[in-house]
Amino acid sequence: MGRTHSNAFLKASHFFELPFTPVLKTICSRNRERAESFAKQWGYESVETDWRKLTESRDVDLIDIASPNDTHAEIAVAAAKAGKTVMCEKPLGRNPAESEAMVKAVELAGVANTVWYNYRRIPAVSLAKQLMDEGRLGTIFHYRTKFLQDWTISSDLPQGGTALWRLDASVAGTGVTGDLLAHNIDTAMWLNGPIEEVSAMTETFIKRRKHQITGQVEPVNIDDASAFLARFQNGSLATFEATRYARGHKALYTFEINGEHASIFWDLHDLHRLEYFDHGDESLLRGWKSIHVTDGDHPYMKHWWVPGLQIGYEHSFIHQAADFLQALGEGKSASPTFREALMTDYVTDAVLQSAASRQWVKVRGR
Amino acid sequence: MGRTHSNAFLKASHFFELPFTPVLKTICSRNRERAESFAKQWGYESVETDWRKLTESRDVDLIDIASPNDTHAEIAVAAAKAGKTVMCEKPLGRNPAESEAMVKAVELAGVANTVWYNYRRIPAVSLAKQLMDEGRLGTIFHYRTKFLQDWTISSDLPQGGTALWRLDASVAGTGVTGDLLAHNIDTAMWLNGPIEEVSAMTETFIKRRKHQITGQVEPVNIDDASAFLARFQNGSLATFEATRYARGHKALYTFEINGEHASIFWDLHDLHRLEYFDHGDESLLRGWKSIHVTDGDHPYMKHWWVPGLQIGYEHSFIHQAADFLQALGEGKSASPTFREALMTDYVTDAVLQSAASRQWVKVRGR
Amino acid sequence: MGRTHSNAFLKASHFFELPFTPVLKTICSRNRERAESFAKQWGYESVETDWRKLTESRDVDLIDIASPNDTHAEIAVAAAKAGKTVMCEKPLGRNPAESEAMVKAVELAGVANTVWYNYRRIPAVSLAKQLMDEGRLGTIFHYRTKFLQDWTISSDLPQGGTALWRLDASVAGTGVTGDLLAHNIDTAMWLNGPIEEVSAMTETFIKRRKHQITGQVEPVNIDDASAFLARFQNGSLATFEATRYARGHKALYTFEINGEHASIFWDLHDLHRLEYFDHGDESLLRGWKSIHVTDGDHPYMKHWWVPGLQIGYEHSFIHQAADFLQALGEGKSASPTFREALMTDYVTDAVLQSAASRQWVKVRGR
Amino acid sequence: MGRTHSNAFLKASHFFELPFTPVLKTICSRNRERAESFAKQWGYESVETDWRKLTESRDVDLIDIASPNDTHAEIAVAAAKAGKTVMCEKPLGRNPAESEAMVKAVELAGVANTVWYNYRRIPAVSLAKQLMDEGRLGTIFHYRTKFLQDWTISSDLPQGGTALWRLDASVAGTGVTGDLLAHNIDTAMWLNGPIEEVSAMTETFIKRRKHQITGQVEPVNIDDASAFLARFQNGSLATFEATRYARGHKALYTFEINGEHASIFWDLHDLHRLEYFDHGDESLLRGWKSIHVTDGDHPYMKHWWVPGLQIGYEHSFIHQAADFLQALGEGKSASPTFREALMTDYVTDAVLQSAASRQWVKVRGR
Repeated sequence: MGRTHSNAFLKASHFFELPFTPVLKTICSRNRERAESFAKQWGYESVETDWRKLTESRDVDLIDIASPNDTHAEIAVAAAKAGKTVMCEKPLGRNPAESEAMVKAVELAGVANTVWYNYRRIPAVSLAKQLMDEGRLGTIFHYRTKFLQDWTISSDLPQGGTALWRLDASVAGTGVTGDLLAHNIDTAMWLNGPIEEVSAMTETFIKRRKHQITGQVEPVNIDDASAFLARFQNGSLATFEATRYARGHKALYTFEINGEHASIFWDLHDLHRLEYFDHGDESLLRGWKSIHVTDGDHPYMKHWWVPGLQIGYEHSFIHQAADFLQALGEGKSASPTFREALMTDYVTDAVLQSAASRQWVKVRGR
Repeated sequence: MGRTHSNAFLKASHFFELPFTPVLKTICSRNRERAESFAKQWGYESVETDWRKLTESRDVDLIDIASPNDTHAEIAVAAAKAGKTVMCEKPLGRNPAESEAMVKAVELAGVANTVWYNYRRIPAVSLAKQLMDEGRLGTIFHYRTKFLQDWTISSDLPQGGTALWRLDASVAGTGVTGDLLAHNIDTAMWLNGPIEEVSAMTETFIKRRKHQITGQVEPVNIDDASAFLARFQNGSLATFEATRYARGHKALYTFEINGEHASIFWDLHDLHRLEYFDHGDESLLRGWKSIHVTDGDHPYMKHWWVPGLQIGYEHSFIHQAADFLQALGEGKSASPTFREALMTDYVTDAVLQSAASRQWVKVRGR
Repeated sequence: MGRTHSNAFLKASHFFELPFTPVLKTICSRNRERAESFAKQWGYESVETDWRKLTESRDVDLIDIASPNDTHAEIAVAAAKAGKTVMCEKPLGRNPAESEAMVKAVELAGVANTVWYNYRRIPAVSLAKQLMDEGRLGTIFHYRTKFLQDWTISSDLPQGGTALWRLDASVAGTGVTGDLLAHNIDTAMWLNGPIEEVSAMTETFIKRRKHQITGQVEPVNIDDASAFLARFQNGSLATFEATRYARGHKALYTFEINGEHASIFWDLHDLHRLEYFDHGDESLLRGWKSIHVTDGDHPYMKHWWVPGLQIGYEHSFIHQAADFLQALGEGKSASPTFREALMTDYVTDAVLQSAASRQWVKVRGR
Repeated sequence: MGRTHSNAFLKASHFFELPFTPVLKTICSRNRERAESFAKQWGYESVETDWRKLTESRDVDLIDIASPNDTHAEIAVAAAKAGKTVMCEKPLGRNPAESEAMVKAVELAGVANTVWYNYRRIPAVSLAKQLMDEGRLGTIFHYRTKFLQDWTISSDLPQGGTALWRLDASVAGTGVTGDLLAHNIDTAMWLNGPIEEVSAMTETFIKRRKHQITGQVEPVNIDDASAFLARFQNGSLATFEATRYARGHKALYTFEINGEHASIFWDLHDLHRLEYFDHGDESLLRGWKSIHVTDGDHPYMKHWWVPGLQIGYEHSFIHQAADFLQALGEGKSASPTFREALMTDYVTDAVLQSAASRQWVKVRGR
């Protein structure tokens, strides 16, 4: 994630007109050697191994948190207290308690803040938002989303350590629910409004794995798969599903929305396309339209290449950096703020509660 | 459905070598005029308006039930008692009680029987079954299926009467749960084994409609949409969803199965294709393969045209007729029998119970 | 082709309201045993081994020619002279001289006639015609079409005999030019008007093959691949290509038309879809639309199933039979007549001449 | 193109380990204001309005030519004479004479050189090359490629000037033949070897346009559309086509290769995918496979994100910059060199000659 964010800050100022030009001041990592190598490759001016130094530094205006989930809360709270602008990788905290503390800290300090739910700013997804906001779909009946991966199917894969902390609940908080479904939920509530209640199931297919560092075979304590039924406040019905056991899918994040007048479908594997069905079309010629979202009038695309030439995954981060810096220039935060991200954590928490209790669970804050 | 079945009986003997050549003896409809017109168009030898006459006729060996759901049980039970071979449109009865009576009748009488869950015999679906049975997918982790339509979105659409009996619960039994999800469930259990338990939600988006015959505005008593989470006996997790409110989809019946070694996807809108991902492929060249199921070694296809030339929806019925007549020649029934179809009804019943009680429900007979 | 045509005649009267109900009177084949078996399977009333008997029979009104190409001219001319209605498989003759004789015969006798260029009547192709005729595309700039197969790549495949007469020029006339490109040309001129001139190349990749009957290794005298550039009378430019050496394609017949306002694409491998791009759409939402041509207002589709349920290859023949019988009731022929099919032969002839002379060649009759 | 190249130089050193870190020294443009604005946005150290200053500068090691085609030859020759490393946008010159002079200059001076035929280094295209080089396709029968755009259809579009120099033959040299087909030809010869001879046609659909600067309505002297048949040295047959009049296509650059054992298809509109058909697959499961070229073992992809996350158009330039700098470290040029690009110019020249003479034309240098 360090590369993704660094690239975003650098490219934002090449391709967008911004009120600030970001300076890559200090890179911080517990491992000095890795930090130095990274600093050299990316042009960071200095290196730290203790993140607290950054909160104390006069040269640092903005702290961007891209470390494992178990560090988010502590760093963010300290950064906010030090009056720094704070950007944080998703999910916010490992659980609602941590997330609430983070929200409280940035709001008390009055510092600008945002969480890297980057997928909102893929142009096709932003276009979907625009179509929803214009009311093109009419009453929404259905929302259907999934995030499918297949990288943990092998029982030989260890858990824990630097590379595999996502499989360790003490670091990650949860498994696919917080790692993958959090993205689905963030996008869904942004597009379709609040979720009222959920009925969920989770599964851990491989029950025990060797720990990468200790070598001990230990119980796996994260969710490998998570699916839930939901009702939105607007009356629409939803299915959500995420797994790391869907053979053939690397990062198949999709959503489909069915409204009275039109429907939308999007897929991260072809992120530059938006599929759109408009019932208002002449009946003889109705069909799903594949919009190649690369024209100058599509969101963000006037900053890139000529029509037909696609951009990729990393550009969602560049767009978020650009929007955030733009907002900063106006003394504001760019969405999603910590508070908005907390709402997502309330849903993931309800999902895990429902899976444990086998009951429908109301989402907190609703 | 009368046309679909009549066409199936006629074409089966042209394209398959069968032990019997079906004779279209008598068409029965409450409306004599329609029956006569149909008989003329299709070459039926005679016409009846009272189905009881068929059970009494010596000339009739097989009774095929293609009338609305509220007539299935009575006709099937009488036909079985009269020693006739019985074929019945799906679902079996309007509820498990009716279905159980039907199973009991055919088993007591010892007559061959089948239910027209026709989608099993689309060549691509039969190929999926073959791959599953050969164990090509390994342990199954996920089953994901939906059946999406959009024909009842308009609030001006009336309910009831001859054309719209599917919107009247007293005739249809249920809404999309029995009409659409029954197909998904039949295929799913055929491919992936029994379903243990479900958590469901249903919705009726348009609460009141005018009745087509009486003209009275009355409450709508069927489910417009139905979705459920499920666990299969083999440990795999599933999501099922059906609706008549998914704008842009006419009959989008899809299923996807993710196994340890391979995954399968199929879609009724392109029914002649099977999508297949094999993790055993060389890593550089892994991908989803689109199999155009039109070669001579694909199920049923040696009976049709040269490779590359597709067949359609009606052929699933022709295949079922051919398989059933073939089985009859050996004194057997062809799958799915009434008993197998009853298992599907137990699942739809559990779904409706779960939606009403907001609890996970165990499937009966498990 | 006997099965395709017999099926067409039978099903046409079940699914369409026609002025005549075809009776399968006599099947004729040089091989009596095969004729009898076929008659039994399809319900033909009688069998002949000499086609001249049919031209003499009072019971026969219509003669349908589905035999190899080298028999077309002789049978058609005799049938016309005997006053029979004549239907003929494509291409008309083996060369323009034969085809001209056939046209002369039917026109002199004044008998109704048609050639089975069946692809015109696939609903998606008929819809393309409708859109073209309505001027929806505006000025046409480009036509692009191909027909790709891969069944003759193996050098072990023999040539000649009953099954492989298509590889024998003395029987077939030409290779892919007459067998495949004839379809592309017929559709192209129907949709886009006359072709003025062509520049072509052909290739025979495997130069010698064993003859299936004699066992002798002999030179291959048909074209395995054929491609040409063309200019239409309306000023549009075209590329045409056909081959039996395109690995991975069974019967990939595609065409694309680019007009000032809109573009169309169709593909036989998914024959129930038409891809349509309309530049008149709102700029933000422009894209290629995949029209599932299965709605009641699509050509021919009100005769079949509910929306979303596709038909297949054989239905193109059923539609042609229905249209022809309908036209017969009005004392007319249905398009394409022998005369129209002759125009196609003039183009294939120009293609072969151009390939031989390495020159641009004007199409005869233009 | 200035942005594309600048971005490539900057990002190459962030994502690849390189022997040199490029320094953006001087940006040169005839328009000082635009140069200064660009320098500020991208961090160039200085600005020039006369390119000769760069050839004279001691601080400049490498000159990258991204200006209109009519400037390529003069700058490249001067740069080579000054001993600079030279990179040049495609096509090399406006005609073979210019290109030959450029080749002579760099070879005489012994300076490293390359032409930005960037599409070779899209990972899916590089993967195609790898498969070809490994002989996976066997004997090649067919090559089929097109480059379709639709941006000049309006007759109101002017020609000439800064933005529209591609429509002015005196600046661009040719129309789509040199602008688009040059890409198709470069890739084709890289993958499939030399082209022997061609038969071509070209068209200028809109004959007169207003000049953007003078306002005068003048004849259009470039080719709007260009198509040709070709034979490769390896015996395979090809069709090439490019146009700016294909409604619905922004930059649809595609190629398909059919070999004895396997086939490949690629499409710039979904540049991260390679479609592959392997006849060696088990017959029951043969089909076109859609390879999502985002895995670590795919060409270039280990430098980017985790599997499933796609890169875009600009990355093809980054890869070329990285490869070129890598080669420079070893004292070599990276392919395609000026000499290789000259071979492409010989083909485009033969195409234009053939279109004018209506004859097959042998490609020079063959």
